[in-house]
Amino acid sequence: MTEEVKAPGRARRLPRAVRERQILDAAVEVFSRHGYHSASMDEISEVAGVSKPMIYSYLGAKEDLFAKCIRREAGRLLEAVRAGIRTELPPDMQLWHGLRAFYRFVAEYRDSWTVLHRQALTVGGQFADEVTVLRTKAIDIVATLVVTAGTKQGLGQVAEFSGPALAVSLVGAAESLADWWLDHSDVSDGVLASWLMNLVWLGFNDLVEGQVWRPAG
Amino acid sequence: MTEEVKAPGRARRLPRAVRERQILDAAVEVFSRHGYHSASMDEISEVAGVSKPMIYSYLGAKEDLFAKCIRREAGRLLEAVRAGIRTELPPDMQLWHGLRAFYRFVAEYRDSWTVLHRQALTVGGQFADEVTVLRTKAIDIVATLVVTAGTKQGLGQVAEFSGPALAVSLVGAAESLADWWLDHSDVSDGVLASWLMNLVWLGFNDLVEGQVWRPAG
Repeated sequence: MTEEVKAPGRARRLPRAVRERQILDAAVEVFSRHGYHSASMDEISEVAGVSKPMIYSYLGAKEDLFAKCIRREAGRLLEAVRAGIRTELPPDMQLWHGLRAFYRFVAEYRDSWTVLHRQALTVGGQFADEVTVLRTKAIDIVATLVVTAGTKQGLGQVAEFSGPALAVSLVGAAESLADWWLDHSDVSDGVLASWLMNLVWLGFNDLVEGQVWRPAG
Repeated sequence: MTEEVKAPGRARRLPRAVRERQILDAAVEVFSRHGYHSASMDEISEVAGVSKPMIYSYLGAKEDLFAKCIRREAGRLLEAVRAGIRTELPPDMQLWHGLRAFYRFVAEYRDSWTVLHRQALTVGGQFADEVTVLRTKAIDIVATLVVTAGTKQGLGQVAEFSGPALAVSLVGAAESLADWWLDHSDVSDGVLASWLMNLVWLGFNDLVEGQVWRPAG
């Protein structure tokens, strides 16, 4: 029996779900490496070890494949962050664990992050929209946490505090720092999360304690 | 003398620089409204009150026009922020003025910000690269300010502090909040800047004073 005959036989034995996962894994890797426009279905097929006709039949053309990558990676990222937050802990510890879960995801699935944060936005259109939905969900998670904590501690009436604005700022800061991290990967996820906590949470605590920064003069 | 004869006569009397400015102003407006791909040269020509052949002759095709918009708006934004920072003031006040200048720019040139932050990234390629250069310059401005202040106050050795990471975080937070602001424009630039200062600068001051946030347990 030659290799050519054997290979399709092996291929048929794998369940479709496994094949699809192999294809998506390969696609995320190739899209991350080359960007959407330069990525080729040939390379995805080669990396996945799945024939091009099978890719088209299972997951569609390049555009569909990219959309499915984004949806899967966005779902994974949110799931990782949600799983990281331990709701029985105080809000600062919840935030701390959420941030670490986020950075651990970026470290472990660097290609996912690249596709989500860099490729999807630069390709635009429906892809960018999916990422906007993801960001909104992430902001909602943080906002719920911060608004609950802020309200409980009487920050509702403090002009220098806005829970939603803090959530938006923190998500922007965390993303920006994740991008920076791609070029400074010697820093640990704990250190990154600690930097953010030491800016954002110390400031939050000061407000709770009635300290306020106001422009001089 | 008919209108048709009079109009080209008037057109010729305007210096090229003025015409180019009219075209770029119109292009920024139209790109901001429709995005790069859907924007039409017909509409830009109509808004600018300049004929399409003249646009092509002065500034090139749509791609060139978009690139020139991004370059001009990026330059303007940086210039506005640099002009806002008054280097004779203490670092917190410099940051405060820089943030306000940034938000005033976003408020006054909302279309510029949309083109820079949303359109350029979603179109990708060289356009996204220009925006990355702009971000890097903005981060450098903040980093210089924060690292100088941090070093002067002995934060160089504090593990919970990193000047470059703070700069990256703050720029990400400021951008994210600017985006949020587009849908919440009843908030003043001073209030936005104050929210950021009250998170970031209070935290920074705490670190200076030896307070540190550490995970419990």
